[in-house]
Amino acid sequence: MKLLITGGGGFVGARLARTLLARGTLAGQRIERMVLTDIAPPPADLLADPRVEARTGPLLTQAEALRTEPFDGVFHLASAVSGECEADFDLGLRSNLDSTRALLDALRANVNAGGKVARFVFSSSVAVFGPDPGHPFPKIVGDDTMPTPQTSYGTQKLICEHLIADYTRKGYLDGRAARLMTVTVRPGRPNGAASSFFSGIIREPLAGVEAICPVSPDVSHPMSSPSRTVDGLIAVYEATREAFCGRTALNLPALNVRASDMLDALEEVAGAKVRARVRFERDERIANIVANWPSGASAARANRLGLHPHETFADIIRQYIDDCRALPTAGETLKGLQ
Amino acid sequence: MKLLITGGGGFVGARLARTLLARGTLAGQRIERMVLTDIAPPPADLLADPRVEARTGPLLTQAEALRTEPFDGVFHLASAVSGECEADFDLGLRSNLDSTRALLDALRANVNAGGKVARFVFSSSVAVFGPDPGHPFPKIVGDDTMPTPQTSYGTQKLICEHLIADYTRKGYLDGRAARLMTVTVRPGRPNGAASSFFSGIIREPLAGVEAICPVSPDVSHPMSSPSRTVDGLIAVYEATREAFCGRTALNLPALNVRASDMLDALEEVAGAKVRARVRFERDERIANIVANWPSGASAARANRLGLHPHETFADIIRQYIDDCRALPTAGETLKGLQ
Repeated sequence: MKLLITGGGGFVGARLARTLLARGTLAGQRIERMVLTDIAPPPADLLADPRVEARTGPLLTQAEALRTEPFDGVFHLASAVSGECEADFDLGLRSNLDSTRALLDALRANVNAGGKVARFVFSSSVAVFGPDPGHPFPKIVGDDTMPTPQTSYGTQKLICEHLIADYTRKGYLDGRAARLMTVTVRPGRPNGAASSFFSGIIREPLAGVEAICPVSPDVSHPMSSPSRTVDGLIAVYEATREAFCGRTALNLPALNVRASDMLDALEEVAGAKVRARVRFERDERIANIVANWPSGASAARANRLGLHPHETFADIIRQYIDDCRALPTAGETLKGLQ
Repeated sequence: MKLLITGGGGFVGARLARTLLARGTLAGQRIERMVLTDIAPPPADLLADPRVEARTGPLLTQAEALRTEPFDGVFHLASAVSGECEADFDLGLRSNLDSTRALLDALRANVNAGGKVARFVFSSSVAVFGPDPGHPFPKIVGDDTMPTPQTSYGTQKLICEHLIADYTRKGYLDGRAARLMTVTVRPGRPNGAASSFFSGIIREPLAGVEAICPVSPDVSHPMSSPSRTVDGLIAVYEATREAFCGRTALNLPALNVRASDMLDALEEVAGAKVRARVRFERDERIANIVANWPSGASAARANRLGLHPHETFADIIRQYIDDCRALPTAGETLKGLQ
């Protein structure tokens, strides 16, 4: 089979690609070819795999060529992140809406030319939920909570969910949208996402670097580890249409934790000295965005697919440490532990 | 003030324009200029009004010029209808999505150039609701019912609702989306809407013409008269932001009636001979579309704005007859009554 992963050079995309290549199969089919598109090239280990072809550049400019290229499956992860979309409205429209539409229309062109219907997993986001005066906003958002997004990013994700549902209804693809929780701990540098600090307050102190938590300790948020997030995307791909149940998006599982819980877990795993590297300093811009996010999420439909979050945030931190130890940069990323 | 009505040549748009011109004011401001855009020119009485300027052609091709033209208020009614959008996927995307986006971006360009923020009313539709296996589908859909559209038309309306909410949040317009119920009785010829027969089974027998009801007598549906629909659009425009409550769409009031109720009302108003001109003959295509529509709607937020439906369907028929009598074509449209 031939797979396309958009955003395949990003953290979740590369991890998904690596996991799939290691498995070798998806939904019972052998993975023969995997195209990774992204604005930057994927990591070297992926480039070294003979099944992988990397295409670098904006998805929007690549979509035209995809109109005559058949794929068995697509994971559409490419996206501008929340902070970027708030700062640059046009960027969000172009990267998240127009690019998705161009990709969907490319797949539709394939089907209209007699090609096969691709299975398609879209990474939507918990950011589709937010408080609107016209609707109650539960503390824990579920599959049945009305999405009333309060960011452009969340709006664009929600719109893509509905586009994908309609292209699926029309038979142009076999689409499934899964709402990712905030993926923590992300390695590397902070990105433009307003949620970036949720990783930063764990990653930086482990690397021996001071970190700032821009929201108060009691701010709670639904998190997922990178591995459980990737497991979720694969399970949603492999689910039968009936098991996925309908064409609307589902929540992926979340561990609902407060910033203070995260730091308690950090202390449990890495000690008080590491935890002490985090200080609280309110950032109004970030805090105002996060204040419009849910404090937790449930995932009844994903649970029925056998998907569950890590049991404790300490487990998530331990996974991050194990991931770092497997890399040549472990000395840097875990300097704070030494 | 200067107003724009897209779809201003259509039935609801022309009625709205006529009502506004007769009032002379909107939200306390004098209406000095009214631009009507549509693919066909508006009726002669509107063209004769010195305040009216008609612009004929697709909205998409007109939007570019609107980027430097300030408006105080916009009623965005232009739309391809449900049947057309099911038959021609590209037409729906272009007419309903791309045109709305171009209009919104034109208004945004005005604001970015230092212009005023236009008040903006969008005619969404009860077609945003539909049964999806992932969600319960109530018989009566309310403001809080999860929209899971089962047509491209409904999907596109819902997407526009969310775009407008986000452009509003960003301060590019003061947008309000109102979900129109099926407007009945429409005059003239059947249009491409799957709901067209709801008007046809009243309009044709009154004109002395046989009509077919393509669904079973017990099919129930939320209806609104043209006048109450126009009243609703105006009230939504004039509502304060606080009274409108949030940025999500609201339902306009509906009278929930079965096809058989409509025919009983027709007999009450026009006699058994007129009713006998309607026969039931199932049309699978229409019936399958209508089967995915709600059988009724509630409108709690609109009710709080003082909006209510006609009390009986007979009242709606009487209004249609009165409207016809005011026109020179009354002899034709009411031939069945003679």
